[in-house]
Order: sequence, then structure tokens, then C-alpha cells
Amino acid sequence: MFFEGSEKKFEAVFSGVDLRTLGVDFYRELVAKSQAEILSSISNDVCDAYLLSESSLFVWSDRVLMITCGRTTLIHACLHMINKIGKENLESLIFQRKNEYYSHLQHTTFDDDLKILRETVDGTFLLFGHEHEHHNCLFHYNKPFTPAEDDKTFELLMYDISDEQSDFLTTEGHTQQAIRDFFKFDKILPGFEIDDFVFNPYGYSMNALKGDKYCTIHVTPQKHYSYVSFETNISMESNFMSTILDVLKPDSFDMVAFEQNIAGLTPDNYDSRMLFSEKIDCGYRVDFGHFYRRDAGVKAPRKL
Amino acid sequence: MFFEGSEKKFEAVFSGVDLRTLGVDFYRELVAKSQAEILSSISNDVCDAYLLSESSLFVWSDRVLMITCGRTTLIHACLHMINKIGKENLESLIFQRKNEYYSHLQHTTFDDDLKILRETVDGTFLLFGHEHEHHNCLFHYNKPFTPAEDDKTFELLMYDISDEQSDFLTTEGHTQQAIRDFFKFDKILPGFEIDDFVFNPYGYSMNALKGDKYCTIHVTPQKHYSYVSFETNISMESNFMSTILDVLKPDSFDMVAFEQNIAGLTPDNYDSRMLFSEKIDCGYRVDFGHFYRRDAGVKAPRKL
Repeated sequence: MFFEGSEKKFEAVFSGVDLRTLGVDFYRELVAKSQAEILSSISNDVCDAYLLSESSLFVWSDRVLMITCGRTTLIHACLHMINKIGKENLESLIFQRKNEYYSHLQHTTFDDDLKILRETVDGTFLLFGHEHEHHNCLFHYNKPFTPAEDDKTFELLMYDISDEQSDFLTTEGHTQQAIRDFFKFDKILPGFEIDDFVFNPYGYSMNALKGDKYCTIHVTPQKHYSYVSFETNISMESNFMSTILDVLKPDSFDMVAFEQNIAGLTPDNYDSRMLFSEKIDCGYRVDFGHFYRRDAGVKAPRKL
Repeated sequence: MFFEGSEKKFEAVFSGVDLRTLGVDFYRELVAKSQAEILSSISNDVCDAYLLSESSLFVWSDRVLMITCGRTTLIHACLHMINKIGKENLESLIFQRKNEYYSHLQHTTFDDDLKILRETVDGTFLLFGHEHEHHNCLFHYNKPFTPAEDDKTFELLMYDISDEQSDFLTTEGHTQQAIRDFFKFDKILPGFEIDDFVFNPYGYSMNALKGDKYCTIHVTPQKHYSYVSFETNISMESNFMSTILDVLKPDSFDMVAFEQNIAGLTPDNYDSRMLFSEKIDCGYRVDFGHFYRRDAGVKAPRKL
């Protein structure tokens, strides 16, 4: 049974209210709108990070970032947030959704989401990628916005990790520490506070915070449709990306970056299949690329 | 409005009845089961070729090949054929379906089709390709079958043809001859009898026959989701494939071949993204590959 690991995501910036003061009940209700729930949370001076039954929610004083996977209805949480805080306080909104391979199993399509969004928010829809290949649908609010200098985001979305790594991650009964070691968090996230959850029988989610840096990881480890996503504001120019790719050896990956050129980041052994880049009207530069391993080889089909 | 050009297809071999004697009313009813209709037909000594509102139907004495696109329900035509001719006369059945990018718009999913097929036919489901990429679902009847020496089939499924070619093919009012010249049929199909249809406002379908050779072409020319499919039993080792690729310059293509190794066919300027190959239990060797142009470059996203 295929699980649609690919996430929906929204990031909204508000003025006139400190979003961290709204309390956990407010966010519990927000998360419920997407048909997910809060599992646990960590906080530091600048951010509250909630681990969800389907992915993650981060709350800073002026912005929220919510990511959900599977059959969740993120659009309803997004609208709830805007209506509760007030559209007059909305400074920036970006709503993203990856193409799905089993779109008939989703409660809403991106077109449905778009209709709902446009009833409330005047915005622009951009399609990054080819419609017959991996692509990412992005909607942004049509209001000028100037990203802060350090407002960079990286999404590393990996498909078909190696059989060996899939075997490890689908082994039941792993401790959190075993999976932390597997991902080499001591190397890529030194000094970070970590909040993670091992799902039963398998699957893994993690939020991490350190000062103004965050990282979140979600793992659908099943062979043949494995998917692992990283999102972070740690620079991909560090050895972060190469370490992760070395651990998971995915057959292919997408990269989405805000305020960073990804053209020079193609790692050894991978080819860039496509690269889309745009300074979008609301102020951000957005890059989307798809990369795949060069050594594909001849494979047998899968018998089902 | 995206049109799902990718086809569903079945090929069934029967004994004990000459399928060509069943008459046009029989095939009109068959085609109606898939929610398509017959537009025209041509015949020669060995084959009747019907051009459909959504793709094509070929009838030989011992086999039918039916290909339909869009939102058609080919599964119902396939079942109708088996029930009418009798499962006891069924010697071989292959039912194929490409992954769809807008599967929520289809009347049935491949899983639905599989359930329906398995109520009548004991068969095997094979998935060629990666579930997170282009893939082709193939179901075959579990009955030993020995393909004749010349029983080869090639499908060349091309995505995102060049803007210039898309502009030409979406120009309204083309004559059939203008499109025949565009595709260089005089070069790739010399001496073939051609039956073709220019759709309004655009779109094109063609069947061609010459002795025991056939070819069918279906064109969804719209920029951003253009798709052109060729199916034929002409050898792809001739200059057939290179001529077509040279005319259309697609960004990527899939190739599906029965009884032919496609590993050595990667053309200049294209890379092989994946290659799946299997001698399937019912007797055929099946190859599936995805290929894409090397010179992708940086592109702007599409504003919708």
C-alpha cells in the first residue's frame, strides 16, 4: 500500500501579534484542521517546534511553518490560521504542494486548494518543474515582502533510498538513538536539541532546534516507495547535504531552496535533471531542481 | 486544463474464432464500452485498423490491440471482449496502463482495473519503473504463450516536445497533409496506407497499414503538457526513432518494447534515466525505459 510521503507546506508571516503567545490549545486546534495531531514539542528562545502525527509545525514570534504528509488537509489549517489572526495582519503566505502519484487518494487536489485560497487571498500560482515529471505547485500572496538576510530555507526531498538503508529503517523496534546514530545527527546537527518519534511498525519524524536554526526530518522507509524529507535553514553549502546523501543513497531527489542558488550544488554521482528558478513577486528567490543517480542500471520490474 | 494523453492499452490473442469476421457493429459496441467511438477505418489483407475518438483499435484474425487515452474506461472494453469471445478461447492477454499525473480525474484507477480483471482472469501484475517516477503497470494472463518470431512491438511515448513544434501543432486549421509532411511520413512510413484525423481545434491521430506492418500515432500538442505516442511493429533499429525524435525534440520519452532489447537504442543527446527488463511468465520479453535530453538548462516556472 503506497504511502504518499510528499508533503504539503505553508509558511505565513504575520504582524501585530506574537504567535508564540497563542498557546498550545490554539495550535492543537490548528493541527486538527489538517486531520493530524500534536505528538510532542520542544522550545527555545525563538521557536516552538511541534512534532505531528503527520510531520511538523514550527512557530516563531512572527511566522508559522507547517508541513504535513499523507492524506492530510493542510489547506484547512492554512485558512484557519489566516482567519484567526486576521488577513489584515498577513504579511506573507507561501503554500506549496508536490505533485502526487496517487492523487485520487487525496481529500483535496491542488486545484481545490487553489480555489479555497483565492476566496481569501489575492495570490499567484507558479508551477516549478514539468507537469509530466516531478513538479512543485507554489501559491504566494501578492503583497511585497522583503525577506531578512538570513531567511533561507532548504528542502531536500529524497526518493528510493538504497535497499540496505530501507531494510534498516523498516526493521521494527529501533530506539530513537539507533536512528539518530544512523542519520549521524552528531555530525550534521551538533549541539541541537532533538525531539523525535519512532512510529509503529516503522517510520520516523524529528524536529531539531539550536538558536535560530531548525531542522525537521520525516521518513517513509518502505522499499519501492521510500521517501525521506529534510527541511532546514542550515546552509546546504556545508557538508550537511553530502552527509545525508551519503547515508541514504537515494535514487533521486528534489531540492527546493528559498534565497539560495542551487545550480552549483549538484553532488558527485548525481545529474541535474531540471532546474527552475524565479524571483517571485512577493520577494523570495525560489529554486526547484530534480537530481538523480547516474548509475541506474537495468532492473527487474516489481511483481505485485 | 491538463489532458491526460498517456494511454491505456490491451492486446488479446484468441483461438477458435476469426476476429475479423465479427463485423463493425461488434467493434462499435466494444469501443463504446470504453466511452470512445469509431471515427473511420482502413483494412488490408491481414488487419482492420479503426481510428477512435480517443486513440485506436487494430483487429487481426487472431488478436485485437486497443489503445485509448484521456478519461476512457478501457477496462470495460477489455472485459467485454473476453466475455463475448469466451475466456476458454483466450490465449494471451496483456493490459497496460501508464502512471497518471491527474489520477483523481480518471473513472477507474489501475487498482480498480486490477480487481475487475482478476475476477475473470488469473494473472500477474508487474510494475515497470519507479513508483516516484514514470512507470508502467502491466497485467498479463498466466497462460504459457509463445510469441511468433516477428511479434515485436515498440511504444515511443514522448513528453514536452519543443516549443516550436508545439506551436505548429496547436495552430488551428491544418490539413491532414500538412501534418503528414511535418511528421515526414513519406520517409518513415513509405508506401503505407494512412487514415488520419485532425481534431478541432487541434490534436491529431493516425493509423497506418502496409502488409503486416502497422503504426499508430496520437498527438496532444498543448505546450507544458504535450504528449505524442507512437506504437508500431516497425523495428526501432531503423532510422524510424531518430527521425521522429529529430522532428519533435521531446524533453523526455518512455520506451516500451516487446521482444526487443532497448538498452542499445539510447539516442545522441539523451540519457537513459532507468531501464527495466523482464521475460514475463506468459512468454514475452518486455523492456521499459525512460530517457531525457541532457541539455535541460535553467527554466522559469509557469504562471497559472
